Amino acid sequence: MELNNRIDDNDDRQSVGVVGAGLVGCLAALAFAAKGFHVTLFELRQDPRTTDDKNKKNLRSINLAVSNRGISALKYVDEQMAERILEHIIPMKGRMIHDITGTKQESQLYGLNGECINSIDRSFLNECLLNELDRAEVRVLFEHKLLKMNNSSDKDKAPVLTLYDTKIHETKTFQFDYIVGADGAHSQFRYQLQKSMKMDYSQKYIDMQYLELYIPPNDDPNADNKFHIDPNHLHIWPRHNFMLIALANKDGSFTSTFFSPWSVIESIKSSEEFLEFFQTNFPDAFKLIGEDALTQAYNSNPRGTLMQVSAYPYHNPNGTAIIIGDAAHSMVPFYGQGMNCGFEDVRILMELIDETKDVKQAFMNYSDARKQDLDAICKLALDNYYEMSSKVTNIWYLIRKKLDYSLGRVVNGRFGLQWLPLYTMVSFRDDIPYSKAIEIEKRQARILTRIQYGVTATFIICGLAKLGHWYHKVHKD
Amino acid sequence: MELNNRIDDNDDRQSVGVVGAGLVGCLAALAFAAKGFHVTLFELRQDPRTTDDKNKKNLRSINLAVSNRGISALKYVDEQMAERILEHIIPMKGRMIHDITGTKQESQLYGLNGECINSIDRSFLNECLLNELDRAEVRVLFEHKLLKMNNSSDKDKAPVLTLYDTKIHETKTFQFDYIVGADGAHSQFRYQLQKSMKMDYSQKYIDMQYLELYIPPNDDPNADNKFHIDPNHLHIWPRHNFMLIALANKDGSFTSTFFSPWSVIESIKSSEEFLEFFQTNFPDAFKLIGEDALTQAYNSNPRGTLMQVSAYPYHNPNGTAIIIGDAAHSMVPFYGQGMNCGFEDVRILMELIDETKDVKQAFMNYSDARKQDLDAICKLALDNYYEMSSKVTNIWYLIRKKLDYSLGRVVNGRFGLQWLPLYTMVSFRDDIPYSKAIEIEKRQARILTRIQYGVTATFIICGLAKLGHWYHKVHKD
Repeated sequence: MELNNRIDDNDDRQSVGVVGAGLVGCLAALAFAAKGFHVTLFELRQDPRTTDDKNKKNLRSINLAVSNRGISALKYVDEQMAERILEHIIPMKGRMIHDITGTKQESQLYGLNGECINSIDRSFLNECLLNELDRAEVRVLFEHKLLKMNNSSDKDKAPVLTLYDTKIHETKTFQFDYIVGADGAHSQFRYQLQKSMKMDYSQKYIDMQYLELYIPPNDDPNADNKFHIDPNHLHIWPRHNFMLIALANKDGSFTSTFFSPWSVIESIKSSEEFLEFFQTNFPDAFKLIGEDALTQAYNSNPRGTLMQVSAYPYHNPNGTAIIIGDAAHSMVPFYGQGMNCGFEDVRILMELIDETKDVKQAFMNYSDARKQDLDAICKLALDNYYEMSSKVTNIWYLIRKKLDYSLGRVVNGRFGLQWLPLYTMVSFRDDIPYSKAIEIEKRQARILTRIQYGVTATFIICGLAKLGHWYHKVHKD
Repeated sequence: MELNNRIDDNDDRQSVGVVGAGLVGCLAALAFAAKGFHVTLFELRQDPRTTDDKNKKNLRSINLAVSNRGISALKYVDEQMAERILEHIIPMKGRMIHDITGTKQESQLYGLNGECINSIDRSFLNECLLNELDRAEVRVLFEHKLLKMNNSSDKDKAPVLTLYDTKIHETKTFQFDYIVGADGAHSQFRYQLQKSMKMDYSQKYIDMQYLELYIPPNDDPNADNKFHIDPNHLHIWPRHNFMLIALANKDGSFTSTFFSPWSVIESIKSSEEFLEFFQTNFPDAFKLIGEDALTQAYNSNPRGTLMQVSAYPYHNPNGTAIIIGDAAHSMVPFYGQGMNCGFEDVRILMELIDETKDVKQAFMNYSDARKQDLDAICKLALDNYYEMSSKVTNIWYLIRKKLDYSLGRVVNGRFGLQWLPLYTMVSFRDDIPYSKAIEIEKRQARILTRIQYGVTATFIICGLAKLGHWYHKVHKD
């Protein structure tokens, strides 16, 4: 077999092949390179930096919210790189809830102490990471389509990848010491890996579509700034069954996404009906996006599908291949953790390599170390749709949340106690694994419920006491 | 595009392409042919009838138990064909439980009135069906590997299959009005179909292996017959965590299968240990199989894996493609329903075509009509492992079963009532869908529990009364 990745005979580095140059694949390649591995990164698509705009638009572009876990992973790989990237983010300190009249907005903070999640454009971030790969002199081969994986169960045999170079129409084979699949929810790497091992796998489509929309910058020269609405909030128009969200871009525009069950969008039969629907449900957003853009989006923008993917184990039995990111655990976008979690995959995997000093052992340990946390965040992400689209307008939810956050601020390490709202643990605390966060939240929820009961009981008792007092008074008089 | 399946211009039949010439694929092809469609059946492997023995042995060969649903589907397609095939079955009227001493066997009947399930060799049945296809002049193309499916969402476009003829090393394309995937648990057809539609899918490996063994015929010329043990029972050596089973073949031999969790087989480190394990746990089977055969099986027979597959929907949105059999719902073999259920898929689909007179509509109706029954039998199959390997030796289970079957015999349509043990409904009543069977069983189980409580209470009351009587007597004396 003629191999296309012969390293110099003088190069005694171990080799790693990463498939998929999306966000997680890029970071994985950078991380392995930083550890001194000889890395090759393959990508099916063209280099997005040399592609014309039309094709770029085909990328998924729900804006991303980078939070603590993502930032921490970037910093783990390279502090300076993290700084270079984080220059471009727009911090969002809370949700901004838009009511149905289009006149009232209400801010709900994310953190206990002003912590922010951060808006960034997916394709922009991807390009930043690709530039970092160039800077680190990592070999990136675009337009290489994975055809086959020869992943022997023989312990001492290194896996071989067969790829098709779509530019020169040629099939090439590459042998690596280790291979990493980060090629997304519809991963070809995973499919090939499954052929040679027992991997539990499930994919489930969520009954929901998304349609991307665009709020242009404010080009009024007399305006205070170029943003029509506050850029430092994640804007939500919660309407129970469906919702609209918007995240700011540096240029003053907002990337907005309309989520709904398929039945809702399918019940809308024309762009006129769509305009009417929008005007009724999101009157302020209707004005900001504009009729023409809405008509255009309804007629031409693709409707995205949402799919949950779960797999186990993530590594092959001999510890030479592993899947990470969406290839291993695609989740719905409602907790803003998809990319953060994928980046965390990289950090956890690298820390296991640091710990074991043995990539095979690290791959083998990774599945059990990571499984319950990945299951946990996938479930949280799904549950959070209900929170974003409905609960944020419910008075009891708001009271409870106020109590939750007040306790967080008051207790906060005092008296040897700790109280952390779930959102804080998930988004701002990379030292608390997802599954642990759920566990702590469950305990706190029980206490909150008791407090609510206690308060209610106190009210009733006070009320009864008052009633008794009044009765006594009336009868005495 | 040059198509390889051009039908005569005078042939106005609609065309159907079936992928997979296993049991279910063959029956589907026969069923469509019987309805007047122009059918082509593709199979990846060589024609098993012209293959030498060694390759044949690579087929899965857990013996099959044909029961009512399978027979009814065969008859639906062609009464005479069913007769020709059913000539070769060996009826099994119950389980024969072998105890650990190897000296005691106990028969537990399957049916209320002597109903039987029927042993048949998988590859033999497959060959019978292939012969029937020749008889019906259906075109069967062996050594054709499915590469691609072009399954447009355009309503009026017929799907195109691209296959690779591994005999002449040539790629061919075929266009059909309808395509059917019956290519098993690891279905390539399903994988291709998933690319063009939203299909929920899950595969889960069950922590269990199986190892095939062989009990030779009795060649003692003075023996009563050529069978070492009763051919009209399904033999079980239940040992809780693991078990051995054996089903008779026409030639006097038995196909036997050893099921265990992976940890059990992996804890056995040599063929000597395996012999010791077998002699301890299955002393009578140990003698029948023989040391040499056991050593050989331990060293060379592959260890089978068990995987559950679930999918939804089974058809594509425009109703031109569908998956059936293991491709749609691979289950563990413990209820003996895998093939029966796959055959029933064919019958249900054909009945929907009869009903709607429109294949597209039938494909579209099939998913919802079939989903809950397929989920039901997959779950039953998994639960039945516990029943076969453990419960059959439990005294309370046996008492309850006796009661269940007694009620079945006594009530049996009298007084306008119906009482049917679950096994009877699943294995002997194709008119009761699987999910309905579970529903009825749940109701009956509640009644059985009440009766058990009632009987226990009566015993206690009678006991107390006796005690009172005795006390009274003692004190009077």
